[in-house]
Amino acid sequence: MKLATLQDGTPDGALVVISADTNRYLLAGETVATLQAALERWPTCAPRLAALADRLAQGEGQPTAAARFAAPLPRAWQWLDGSAFASHGALMQQAFRLPPIETDLPLMYQGMSHQFLGPRDDVPLPSEADGIDFEGEFGIVTDAVPMGTSAAEALAHVRLIVQLNDWSLRTIAPVEMKTGFGWIQAKPACSVAPFAVTPDELGDAWRDGRVCLDLAVSWNGAHFGNANGAPMSFGFHDLIAHAARTRPLPAGTIIGSGTVSNPNYREVGSSCIAERRGIEIVDHGAPRTSFMRFGDTVRMEASLPDGAAVFGAIDQRVVAQGDARG
Amino acid sequence: MKLATLQDGTPDGALVVISADTNRYLLAGETVATLQAALERWPTCAPRLAALADRLAQGEGQPTAAARFAAPLPRAWQWLDGSAFASHGALMQQAFRLPPIETDLPLMYQGMSHQFLGPRDDVPLPSEADGIDFEGEFGIVTDAVPMGTSAAEALAHVRLIVQLNDWSLRTIAPVEMKTGFGWIQAKPACSVAPFAVTPDELGDAWRDGRVCLDLAVSWNGAHFGNANGAPMSFGFHDLIAHAARTRPLPAGTIIGSGTVSNPNYREVGSSCIAERRGIEIVDHGAPRTSFMRFGDTVRMEASLPDGAAVFGAIDQRVVAQGDARG
Repeated sequence: MKLATLQDGTPDGALVVISADTNRYLLAGETVATLQAALERWPTCAPRLAALADRLAQGEGQPTAAARFAAPLPRAWQWLDGSAFASHGALMQQAFRLPPIETDLPLMYQGMSHQFLGPRDDVPLPSEADGIDFEGEFGIVTDAVPMGTSAAEALAHVRLIVQLNDWSLRTIAPVEMKTGFGWIQAKPACSVAPFAVTPDELGDAWRDGRVCLDLAVSWNGAHFGNANGAPMSFGFHDLIAHAARTRPLPAGTIIGSGTVSNPNYREVGSSCIAERRGIEIVDHGAPRTSFMRFGDTVRMEASLPDGAAVFGAIDQRVVAQGDARG
Repeated sequence: MKLATLQDGTPDGALVVISADTNRYLLAGETVATLQAALERWPTCAPRLAALADRLAQGEGQPTAAARFAAPLPRAWQWLDGSAFASHGALMQQAFRLPPIETDLPLMYQGMSHQFLGPRDDVPLPSEADGIDFEGEFGIVTDAVPMGTSAAEALAHVRLIVQLNDWSLRTIAPVEMKTGFGWIQAKPACSVAPFAVTPDELGDAWRDGRVCLDLAVSWNGAHFGNANGAPMSFGFHDLIAHAARTRPLPAGTIIGSGTVSNPNYREVGSSCIAERRGIEIVDHGAPRTSFMRFGDTVRMEASLPDGAAVFGAIDQRVVAQGDARG
């Protein structure tokens, strides 16, 4: 089942069910108005949403082409982002001569969750001098997870899978990281691809708590990367258990993979500019690629083996704060 | 004006206005049902809530003695905690031989905000071995703050002042801090004193964006500390501007001061056990005070010069997860 949220002027938007070919949608309004509400009562709501999917399969529905999608959860009670691709961390340490991070546990920070940008919304930021970068990621959305849930129990709490862009400001990030307190200024609102899908939609590509799909990233129309989500050091079930060790997780918690990165990054490319710059530092002693400028666009899309863009595409433009068309 | 939230089985509870002597309350229900809603439409709601305060001044209302208070915001879209008392940081560095934190900016982390415990709720935690500690703090609650708001503009966005306990797990905290990603497991749900008050309620004690009141802390009934909120290195207006540099803040954002600490901590005591242990390490080479055990209680209360406990008291018990009475 594929779900999405239409922008309708309300903070949580309007939940819709999307047809298998992603060409049509049906409003879930009478069944359940918002995705947050559906996640809070999933066992009751999911069958009703599936019934709408059946009607879509019969040919009902409105065309998605004219729809204006919000993030599936335009706001959420919790956003926890991992950094689960070891090749990314190792490269950053090598390039920037950082000491290794001393932990056997998953890396995770808590980010702002009161606003997630829609897949085609402009991205308003205050300054190009902050080092504007994208981070292509996969993520999962949970129902309510009790404190102390184990990794083995955690997979059952994965209700939806999403694809997102964890916008990052690279000039600020290392300064904040050195404090040990994590990031505030370096991590503005994320963007999310339009379709949040149940794990079965991925078939064999959802395995071991990992989204084993290539994430195609292009920057200003030029191919940038095509890394695969499989080689996470920790699966999403491990990330859920890590997060729930001393807190319950509310329904609608979104957990991210961290920027998708593969050990053969010289072949497949990267999902963020920082990684490409890291490669350039290792290879040439200095970075050659600049961060983003206002007006730049980034597109991110993951496809199933049959070519279907299962999450839809993020395709958006960075603009100076104040210039955004919402 | 003093506001509070009654536990009523809903996630956001029921907003009430509290009498000046804190002995009576009136439900705000018909005016505005929740504190979150009031903060989203403050210019409209505040006069209506003030009218209820006038009725309380005429002697109307129910007794607060029998009321069961939630946190003023039982859940919030954003919780950002500073660490603005320099004497605390300096002592921790001295005691634990940590390198100084390299930044001229305020220290701040983003914590879980989907759950704030009420002032008398039990505090369920998984293990005494995690090093259970309290952190007595003051905090402010904002209305919506645009991205890029300056410190000079920020004070006008402080709608309410609160007093809270930022529960901390000290065995985990340094491990997570070393990653640079901030805290997940080390920072479970905070607790908040019952009354959220408008700045005018503090009179001269609200100045320079600081809550210039003593915070009386007792542990298992024994006096523990009485530090004053004045000597923050950054005022709350600075913390708001710091947070809003690259993001808008939603109405209902709570920003904390960090554990209240004074340079003369040997005289006034501390607002967290970690600080007392730090003093012991400096004085004796090793800590003598253990962290909390299940069944331990902590009470926190700040009084105006006339003796009135303006925020009410946090008075609660730590229990093993599963043993909580909610």
